[in-house]
Amino acid sequence: MNLPRGQKPFVVGLAGLGTVGGGLVRLLEENAELTRLRAGRDIVVKRILVRDAAKAREVSPPADAELTTDAAALTDDPEIDALAELIGGIDQARALIDRALDKGKHVVTANKALLAEDGLALFKKAENNNLVLRCEAAVAGAIPIVQTMKESLTGNRVTSLLGILNGTSNYILSEMTTGNLDFDTALKQAQELGYAEADPSLDIDGHDAAHKLILLIRLAHGVDYPYATLPVSGIRGISVMDIRLAEEFGYHIKLIGRVREVADTRGGMSLEAGVFPALVHNRYLLARVNGVYNAIRVEANAAGSLFFHGRGAGALPTAGAALSDLVAAARGAPADNTGFARPDLPQAAVLPWEDGRSSFYVRLTVRDRPGVLRDLAGAMAAEEISVAQMIQKSGEGGIVPLVFMTHETTTRAMNKSLERMRDAGLLTEPAVCHRVL
Amino acid sequence: MNLPRGQKPFVVGLAGLGTVGGGLVRLLEENAELTRLRAGRDIVVKRILVRDAAKAREVSPPADAELTTDAAALTDDPEIDALAELIGGIDQARALIDRALDKGKHVVTANKALLAEDGLALFKKAENNNLVLRCEAAVAGAIPIVQTMKESLTGNRVTSLLGILNGTSNYILSEMTTGNLDFDTALKQAQELGYAEADPSLDIDGHDAAHKLILLIRLAHGVDYPYATLPVSGIRGISVMDIRLAEEFGYHIKLIGRVREVADTRGGMSLEAGVFPALVHNRYLLARVNGVYNAIRVEANAAGSLFFHGRGAGALPTAGAALSDLVAAARGAPADNTGFARPDLPQAAVLPWEDGRSSFYVRLTVRDRPGVLRDLAGAMAAEEISVAQMIQKSGEGGIVPLVFMTHETTTRAMNKSLERMRDAGLLTEPAVCHRVL
Repeated sequence: MNLPRGQKPFVVGLAGLGTVGGGLVRLLEENAELTRLRAGRDIVVKRILVRDAAKAREVSPPADAELTTDAAALTDDPEIDALAELIGGIDQARALIDRALDKGKHVVTANKALLAEDGLALFKKAENNNLVLRCEAAVAGAIPIVQTMKESLTGNRVTSLLGILNGTSNYILSEMTTGNLDFDTALKQAQELGYAEADPSLDIDGHDAAHKLILLIRLAHGVDYPYATLPVSGIRGISVMDIRLAEEFGYHIKLIGRVREVADTRGGMSLEAGVFPALVHNRYLLARVNGVYNAIRVEANAAGSLFFHGRGAGALPTAGAALSDLVAAARGAPADNTGFARPDLPQAAVLPWEDGRSSFYVRLTVRDRPGVLRDLAGAMAAEEISVAQMIQKSGEGGIVPLVFMTHETTTRAMNKSLERMRDAGLLTEPAVCHRVL
Repeated sequence: MNLPRGQKPFVVGLAGLGTVGGGLVRLLEENAELTRLRAGRDIVVKRILVRDAAKAREVSPPADAELTTDAAALTDDPEIDALAELIGGIDQARALIDRALDKGKHVVTANKALLAEDGLALFKKAENNNLVLRCEAAVAGAIPIVQTMKESLTGNRVTSLLGILNGTSNYILSEMTTGNLDFDTALKQAQELGYAEADPSLDIDGHDAAHKLILLIRLAHGVDYPYATLPVSGIRGISVMDIRLAEEFGYHIKLIGRVREVADTRGGMSLEAGVFPALVHNRYLLARVNGVYNAIRVEANAAGSLFFHGRGAGALPTAGAALSDLVAAARGAPADNTGFARPDLPQAAVLPWEDGRSSFYVRLTVRDRPGVLRDLAGAMAAEEISVAQMIQKSGEGGIVPLVFMTHETTTRAMNKSLERMRDAGLLTEPAVCHRVL
């Protein structure tokens, strides 16, 4: 690949001049010389789609770029080679990308929600039109996991992938752990620092991690796992008490997104996937991921265990990922957008959530009376759950917390056992139950 | 990218049926279906170059593959699409790859020594012939750092890259740390387990890590750093005493390969690069990399800090990387082999090793007499080195060890100061001096 002399620049239409869009504009300038050496040509922004062209902005757009409120000025301009979609949201972003692909533009996007909930049709259109549709910036910020799954691990069968995929939740859990803050205080602090939105539910209820997990499932397994059917729970229920108790057993509580292959009852392999808070043992690097960092652990049949760690969000880390995608498009990278040569991704064979096996952390609040431990143990034994470790704490007013760490069992057995306890009137508060990795 | 029906297989000539070659044969069979889905076609081995076709082997070659001792049967067969060079060594491997590129074959190799010492001409030939020359398996085993540098981090300027690049050395240091073994015993154990060669110098003297670092410098900075001029020191000098003393300060000793950008005296940027044992603080993930694992930390201007961790060697981890490269070639990946669009890589601007700045760990063995501390401190003050921490241990027979942790200074000042001590007859043994990260 010789450095072409006088080759025409690669022309970008940028949609969105917010955090990531602004970061991209800054990087294109700061790294211009290096980008030219990498891509063999200049990458320039010709036009930027904004909601209000007159608004004062922190980031000044490039001198030669024109602000517009007209989407067609990006998608329909024959001079524009690629759309960088950094506006987020679903409907407008979908229309924009769809139109850009119709008009023969490559597309780079950070929009995990759109791609997870409704991305298959866009990937199919990109494929049919032989266009690049890249989304490195959509998953785990600066960690280059998308291209790694698509290209670097193709010699492997991925047997499991799990990670800390949401920086906001990880920041809150880290602050609860090290700063001893309760959930509400830690959330408020995250909001003040700009790590959490005014409406934080996308992050703390696990939906953002779920979007990313859906994309990772496609990349790792080449199948479509419908977003609406993915089991998702977030971190609202986590208390400082559980964080402290987990520490006593040697664990940190993390919000985990995981997919793994599990032999199913039909003799095949199904995928067990979900987003959930879990206890991660200190001996794992994953337990040491703090603040707004993300991390991903991949288990694969040739590579063994791989671990990736980096910033999960932020203007420059995310913009850097988007710029790398633009460099690839400018270089003329082939449109192998899914990493699989299938015309359509087949549906994932999904293991029912209740069939999934795990060890569990169970915190029970009970009245301190003779026989209560026997009754609790009986409710677990009735579902063939065996206990690995137990702590009883002193309580107040005759109410005591009891913590069990179980051996591996199914979610179904665990739930049934908790139901038995509840039905027998043993619990004075709802049980707290988390998976243990 | 549709799955082509009846498309002809991608035909590989495999050179070498040792550890990695055998692993590749096994993976091609084990992952055959997945490979087909990834590449859109079958990948088959037609012919395998071995030294002795009659020799009994642990790995049985694929049923359709023919063993040969004739290199031309691989390079000159028009049916063969790609050469997988897994024989190692320099001369024969170079001739093989060179001929394969002449004959229009793509090349996949794990040969870091060849590529580092003499790879530029091969990359140039591949580029001129528009052929893929890939080497993911050459650096850090299963960690996909080559493709990451070439494609995923192109939106970044890499300001520093450092890592644990040699699993054998890391295994020995880990065993010395956790098992309290001395160097010779740990080395012997590594040899018995097959982690170290009968002649271990390539690993323990830092040359293997140096080969990998040279390749990483090219990928990160797009420049040629001549292998022969890279400062390299290994782990032969490391004693259990220094490992224990480092622990007291909160550090682990690791064999590190590092390159970083440093502002030079001419107002430009030079590269400071080398392989050396160093003290790594426990707070870094890098300090927790144990056994035969490798890890790499990249600092980049958009991404911030990225960390990669995985198996540094072994049949399947390395073969998986080679297979991913074959899948890329089978997909028709473009020949952007260096990650830079330059026709020739320019020479690196190299910071003289003595100008490099660092904190240092210095262990001095002295006669315990009044004024010795004053004299040692004077030798450091004379070079404007200031001391951050110090430990004095009780010794035997009036000989005591003293350990200093210095503030940042240059290697030149540190060496001069040690020279002053030696010239003044203060030291009863040679000083031990390591960098602190």
